[in-house]
Amino acid sequence: MGPHPAVAAIRLAVRRVLHDVLNQESAGVPAGPEARRRSGSVPARRPLVLVACSGGADSMALASALAFEAPKLDVRAGAITIDHGLQSGSGQRAAEVAARLRAFHLDPVETIAVTVGRQGGPEAAARDARYAALDEAAERLGATAVLLGHTRDDQAETVLLGLARGSGTRSLSGMAAVSGAHGRYRRPFLHLDRQTARKACLVQSLPVWDDPHNTDPAYTRSRLRQEGLPALEKSLGKGVIEALARTAQLSRDDADALDAWAADAERTVRADAADGGEDSAALDTAKLYALPPAVRRRVLRRAAIAVGSPPGSLFAKHIEEVDRLITGWRGQGVINLPGRVEVHRRCGSLVIRRRDEAAAEH
Amino acid sequence: MGPHPAVAAIRLAVRRVLHDVLNQESAGVPAGPEARRRSGSVPARRPLVLVACSGGADSMALASALAFEAPKLDVRAGAITIDHGLQSGSGQRAAEVAARLRAFHLDPVETIAVTVGRQGGPEAAARDARYAALDEAAERLGATAVLLGHTRDDQAETVLLGLARGSGTRSLSGMAAVSGAHGRYRRPFLHLDRQTARKACLVQSLPVWDDPHNTDPAYTRSRLRQEGLPALEKSLGKGVIEALARTAQLSRDDADALDAWAADAERTVRADAADGGEDSAALDTAKLYALPPAVRRRVLRRAAIAVGSPPGSLFAKHIEEVDRLITGWRGQGVINLPGRVEVHRRCGSLVIRRRDEAAAEH
Repeated sequence: MGPHPAVAAIRLAVRRVLHDVLNQESAGVPAGPEARRRSGSVPARRPLVLVACSGGADSMALASALAFEAPKLDVRAGAITIDHGLQSGSGQRAAEVAARLRAFHLDPVETIAVTVGRQGGPEAAARDARYAALDEAAERLGATAVLLGHTRDDQAETVLLGLARGSGTRSLSGMAAVSGAHGRYRRPFLHLDRQTARKACLVQSLPVWDDPHNTDPAYTRSRLRQEGLPALEKSLGKGVIEALARTAQLSRDDADALDAWAADAERTVRADAADGGEDSAALDTAKLYALPPAVRRRVLRRAAIAVGSPPGSLFAKHIEEVDRLITGWRGQGVINLPGRVEVHRRCGSLVIRRRDEAAAEH
Repeated sequence: MGPHPAVAAIRLAVRRVLHDVLNQESAGVPAGPEARRRSGSVPARRPLVLVACSGGADSMALASALAFEAPKLDVRAGAITIDHGLQSGSGQRAAEVAARLRAFHLDPVETIAVTVGRQGGPEAAARDARYAALDEAAERLGATAVLLGHTRDDQAETVLLGLARGSGTRSLSGMAAVSGAHGRYRRPFLHLDRQTARKACLVQSLPVWDDPHNTDPAYTRSRLRQEGLPALEKSLGKGVIEALARTAQLSRDDADALDAWAADAERTVRADAADGGEDSAALDTAKLYALPPAVRRRVLRRAAIAVGSPPGSLFAKHIEEVDRLITGWRGQGVINLPGRVEVHRRCGSLVIRRRDEAAAEH
């Protein structure tokens, strides 16, 4: 008799990602123990894959599947648990999670305490601190990949959070299956539902910890999980989570294609002889006008960022105002963008430059 | 003292659309009464703009604004009210709405009774019957445009309904400000909220009719309006409706750009000498492979539709299966698509053709 379907599902998901990681690694280091032993250029070292584990159902299921699958592929498996220090007893909690991870024979298992700042709100600050610690650990331990337990339900929530920003296709693309430096972060459960992970823990008798943050209505994501998404499912039917996850993938592909087009178009619309330097750019307004609006706005955004406008402060309304220099030209003056960048139209060119540079010229 | 802000807002929205309609018409018939009188090529006829009015707050506000603005631009303004015949007394109701519209001095005002079928569910069937009647009336009366009262709230609902389908960027693009044959349908209120339309009726003492369908939980859109969207607003904040409407516009632009790219790419990947005919197409697999996935899938979809696969039955899963002939080639057999279309890979070509044609060859 094989394992419970939920356990089979989580193991399959992890196995696929491990195969992919080994194949990818084979570009540099040949894959598989045989090939690695034959390879003379690098020491024959078994690759290390880490799992980031909070002790919740999703990441405990992930850790259990990694512990099961890794040895079969001659991969070393370790785990990191982050102590965010946001609740009393969080250190004790992290130590307990680490003990459970060691019981899976994962090695190394590390508990890392981080200091959560305030930038961007409590959720963003905790995330930033967490990824910084995971990056550091992955570098220090020489890990090939770090597995994250995000499920299809998390993906659906992320799409809705992006929808609430209303900033378009990229913001609807959710979390990537592969992300981070050198594609370090992997999300094997992105197509599995939360219920499967929970069930896999249950049938394997794994104790799980329910983070009180997940149900705390002070957090947007918690409200979405507890109220928003259930109400949406009630209105639109049970397929909503799946539809949102599919939207993420389709939106990601669309955004990638349009970004590629914009990168290409940006080169062709440059009116200046050279590449324009770091401090300014001159773009041909007639060529810009001929582009589809979706591509033109991306080109304008890229150009503004290239001369120093910070991406996080550059909103659609800014780009729309710049776009009107092309599509609704009626002699507008200089437009100021975040990061001391200014844009004006002159003699068939759109000039985008740093303000201090502009001041020095006068 | 000017009009109430809500009344000013609805009038401005209608005025902008009327200007746009007159400008557009001037391609054929010169705009404005002066120019039209001077024009010898066509009879000096004042253009007619119709409003589709259910008697609800949105379309009553629209009718009142059209009645106010049209004479100033020397435009004739008329109205159509559709009797869907779905509730007892609906004929009486339509007659009352028509009387109110005549009180605005709109002329002509027509009540059109339609028979609602069953195809695609009750909402889609009612919509199909309504647009068929509006198209017929616009043709018969020689109307330049038909104004529709959809608000930003309707747009937000439409985006969420598209999201529930999970079929990507195009399905998130909501309703267009301009649509239909010759850009006949115009939605002046797409950037105004429902509350503004309601307020404009209130301050103008216009009686409005609340369609019981709008609150009937048997309809998906009603459930969304009554429960889904309010819960989403509670989770994500008050800006959700605006964010959804903005998503519609951005998604529409993105989908248009990608469709244009796919149309262009389809020509370059055709492996057959001529345009391939109506019954089959041969596409170069190497060229397809080089395209971004978002563009490649659109090319495959276009090619399948061109040989007869019905767009409404051709789902993402079909296209993904065809795509694997390119990205995951392992000697798969023939793939059957809806509408008796089949796809197979042979000698570096993807052959897409009607099944009966394939049978005739053997």
